[in-house]
Amino acid sequence: MRSVVIIGAGNVAFHLTRALIQNTVNVRQIFNRTLYKAQELGEANNIKYTDKISELEKADLYIIAASDSAVEELSHYIPFDDTLVVHTSGSLSTSVLKGDYRKGVFYPFQTFTKRKNLRYEEVPFFVEAENKDDEEALFKLADKISNEVYRVDSEKRLKVHLSGIWASNFVNHMYQIAQTICKEADLPFDVLRPLIEETAKKVQDLEPFDAQTGPARRGDELIINKHLEVLKDSRHQQLYRLISDSILRTYRND
Amino acid sequence: MRSVVIIGAGNVAFHLTRALIQNTVNVRQIFNRTLYKAQELGEANNIKYTDKISELEKADLYIIAASDSAVEELSHYIPFDDTLVVHTSGSLSTSVLKGDYRKGVFYPFQTFTKRKNLRYEEVPFFVEAENKDDEEALFKLADKISNEVYRVDSEKRLKVHLSGIWASNFVNHMYQIAQTICKEADLPFDVLRPLIEETAKKVQDLEPFDAQTGPARRGDELIINKHLEVLKDSRHQQLYRLISDSILRTYRND
Repeated sequence: MRSVVIIGAGNVAFHLTRALIQNTVNVRQIFNRTLYKAQELGEANNIKYTDKISELEKADLYIIAASDSAVEELSHYIPFDDTLVVHTSGSLSTSVLKGDYRKGVFYPFQTFTKRKNLRYEEVPFFVEAENKDDEEALFKLADKISNEVYRVDSEKRLKVHLSGIWASNFVNHMYQIAQTICKEADLPFDVLRPLIEETAKKVQDLEPFDAQTGPARRGDELIINKHLEVLKDSRHQQLYRLISDSILRTYRND
Repeated sequence: MRSVVIIGAGNVAFHLTRALIQNTVNVRQIFNRTLYKAQELGEANNIKYTDKISELEKADLYIIAASDSAVEELSHYIPFDDTLVVHTSGSLSTSVLKGDYRKGVFYPFQTFTKRKNLRYEEVPFFVEAENKDDEEALFKLADKISNEVYRVDSEKRLKVHLSGIWASNFVNHMYQIAQTICKEADLPFDVLRPLIEETAKKVQDLEPFDAQTGPARRGDELIINKHLEVLKDSRHQQLYRLISDSILRTYRND
């Protein structure tokens, strides 16, 4: 890809822009409907920026890095036919892109926070395109950034995304419930941070199946019942029971 | 504490022994009912070891570092009255210790894997004792190892332990379900490892409330329903629904 335009200026746009530039890809322009955000991202990376469709420059690739609900609308903005347009979503198919251009997907599988450093070479990328040449070009582009690039269809990509919901969104909610319980004992969230870090580190070497510990893993009903008594929130009780049950069954092989 | 005897040779015993020795505490002896395990831990740290109660040496402190279900039985083994005996459990009270010695708790809040390096100064310790002098002595001992030492009663310690179940055991189960879904797309667990690591890193700086992302956070029912359709396992479906619902409610403030 000789030239790329980024559509969007959120977390994903921020990191994709940085990752592309670090790998000497020519990012030609940032487009965003809110000008100051386009400006911020553009100026930080010494790239032209605009909030006007009429000023959109011609490029080989347009990456729509926006929230799922905004992709379709933004896809109308690209006025060129002889180009490739991709989105960065885990859950949307290429058909959400409404234009006569060629279509594809460029999905980085990571949770992005602005201004936080990331090792881009470790971020898995999932690429898809309507035709083989474009898929190859997207693969090569992702391969510049990352050591982990996969060609997947929309069905598989949806599963990847869904697995990420469990490994990241749901995990974060577990952190939040843990914090609520800690607060009841007048203890700060700091108390949990080393445990959280180590739990994630553990599965960098081990499989989750082998890393599992705790009362449900041991089938220790005594402690499980003690915990259920301590839990005040009925939703937390229900979740505790269901997750413990799921762990118990996993090791009973049923 | 001028001298310590460790009862047990599992993960917690392994790391406590190491942490104490690194901080020049005199660990006098390892006792374990399975001799080769006592030997392994003893020899690795140049400490005497035994599997015979009759050979148990006199010390200022006995740390029973064993699984919850074994603590009570092991507590009978210590034949001295004028000494302090503690266990390392998050869920047991001091009354589980059956002897005429003084009693306490020395609870390190971390998930321990043998032979894995840990920064002990970051492991929170929770201490408790029946009398103030012993509590002070346990506090000082933990304070040699760690920067995070707390005095808590059994009720609070149980809550700390319970919060750890969410932040570690349940989190690991989320990893495992994520792996199951990834496998359905013929993708290895490696694809999830950077996301898992980053999700844990994120809450080292942010609060979980602010770190939350995903369809449930956005209230995106369309994607939630799409995911529910993809999930094959009815238990996973039930969990997905319940956790998403819990996230939705968290941000609706009800």
